Amino acid sequence: MKISKAVRPFTVTRGKGFRLAGVDPGNTDGIHSKEDARDILAQGIERLAQMQEKLYAQDRWSVLLIFQAMDAAGKDSTIKHVMSGVNPQGCEVHSFKAPSEEELDHDYMWRSTCRLPQRGRIGIFNRSYYEEVLVVRVHQELLAKQKLPSSLVTGRIWEERYEDIRAFERYATRNGVKIVKFFLHVSREEQRQRFLDRLEEPEKNWKFSAADVRERDQWDRYMHAYEEMIRHTATPDVPWHVVPADHKWFTRAVVAQTVIDALQSLELRYPKLGTGKMRELKKARRELESQGRKKR
Amino acid sequence: MKISKAVRPFTVTRGKGFRLAGVDPGNTDGIHSKEDARDILAQGIERLAQMQEKLYAQDRWSVLLIFQAMDAAGKDSTIKHVMSGVNPQGCEVHSFKAPSEEELDHDYMWRSTCRLPQRGRIGIFNRSYYEEVLVVRVHQELLAKQKLPSSLVTGRIWEERYEDIRAFERYATRNGVKIVKFFLHVSREEQRQRFLDRLEEPEKNWKFSAADVRERDQWDRYMHAYEEMIRHTATPDVPWHVVPADHKWFTRAVVAQTVIDALQSLELRYPKLGTGKMRELKKARRELESQGRKKR
Repeated sequence: MKISKAVRPFTVTRGKGFRLAGVDPGNTDGIHSKEDARDILAQGIERLAQMQEKLYAQDRWSVLLIFQAMDAAGKDSTIKHVMSGVNPQGCEVHSFKAPSEEELDHDYMWRSTCRLPQRGRIGIFNRSYYEEVLVVRVHQELLAKQKLPSSLVTGRIWEERYEDIRAFERYATRNGVKIVKFFLHVSREEQRQRFLDRLEEPEKNWKFSAADVRERDQWDRYMHAYEEMIRHTATPDVPWHVVPADHKWFTRAVVAQTVIDALQSLELRYPKLGTGKMRELKKARRELESQGRKKR
Repeated sequence: MKISKAVRPFTVTRGKGFRLAGVDPGNTDGIHSKEDARDILAQGIERLAQMQEKLYAQDRWSVLLIFQAMDAAGKDSTIKHVMSGVNPQGCEVHSFKAPSEEELDHDYMWRSTCRLPQRGRIGIFNRSYYEEVLVVRVHQELLAKQKLPSSLVTGRIWEERYEDIRAFERYATRNGVKIVKFFLHVSREEQRQRFLDRLEEPEKNWKFSAADVRERDQWDRYMHAYEEMIRHTATPDVPWHVVPADHKWFTRAVVAQTVIDALQSLELRYPKLGTGKMRELKKARRELESQGRKKR
């Protein structure tokens, strides 16, 4: 599968030394055209739907897709275009906004762990606990709101959070949660264009907030926070996929293929029935057949 | 819209005197062929996806689809075929199984109310609190497990439950939850055929349980429970849609159209911005435009 090869360069399995500047947001390597990407996506969605049925029937693994990105990088539209077509009964999306009072009264992972997907399901986090080392790192005043005992807030807090997140993902992996992490990497200029589009189209206006423009002033600090996050939390079992995001068609095809590759690695199959269960089924069939003879 | 007309006969707005025997599970009135149904469904899914985007953007109404039926009537496959294609970010499905210990330690509506859809979303209940007047009514030994103070379990318990459910749905409706209730009405003979199919196909085996066959002995008591449920909980604001379910293509087309009609009744539109917000957007645009001139 040549497209599988095309997505590999974007997978970061060892974070150490990773440089975000090495990834061009405008990259479209490996997919020749918008039309090719559309075909890849359409086929991908079909495969995804099939594999998700097996995942559901087997009821052993669960899959968690995490999407992180700057505003307007295409998180929502990627989720929509890649995951529409999947049976919603086996798929759940959670968008994490600014934490509520109740959520702030818990540890920062609490609201995420409560929303981990059941076995057999695909869960999608639109933003996630990674915000705790992104927006909270850029706006450190948010830390004060987290009601942590002050002796626990030290200069090592970010390193501790990376370590805790790594440990959490290792634990989840060991318990059958396949985590697939995407950072959609958009350029500052492309974000500007997309914001202007949102301002132009009445149907997109509602998605726009003036605060989003202000966040652009912190661009470099955000890029640094993303880079640090990837450096410290990309591991062989739970890599980061750093996907160029200036061309939506490219982003969607790469994300779809990456999800397919992840599902494929689970070697999903329909559950095999034991002999006891087989006997039970035979008996049920005889009974149903005799009901047919009697009634009509 | 002629298809809109075709679904109307299946809507029960006044339960009193409703007779289930009056609905033929094999009915396909109003849709001429399987191919017609497929076209209706395909167009329906597209319309649904569009309307769901508005629902999400407007963020005022939520929609709750409730599916009740005998086993193998097609709840799962209807959800899959009607709702795949809708953005999973705006749609969540909950399947209610036998209640857990924690759930039994609460009132019987608790687990459902916790899972009501947020504003802007479509929630789907695959089974629901209606099981409390269906399986629990047929198997009254289940009542004992609900840990109710014994003085509260009287001969009036089913009427009380109908009344409480009506009151709950009235409350939800008043607070912006549009509830759409489906009873997929399959015949006993068609269920038998579908069970035999499940036994035949290895990919469907896992869905089969011998207990499902035993439940067939209670068929008439179940039909009575459904009829009573519809008689007592079909109201003009929250009707029951009793959909013939012996032909899956017919069921899906009717369900899709009914959901569309329900969404249409909400007169959804993209949110209109106030003048304050408009000024804010203008300012944001000027700022973004000036950033373009400076940077490149």
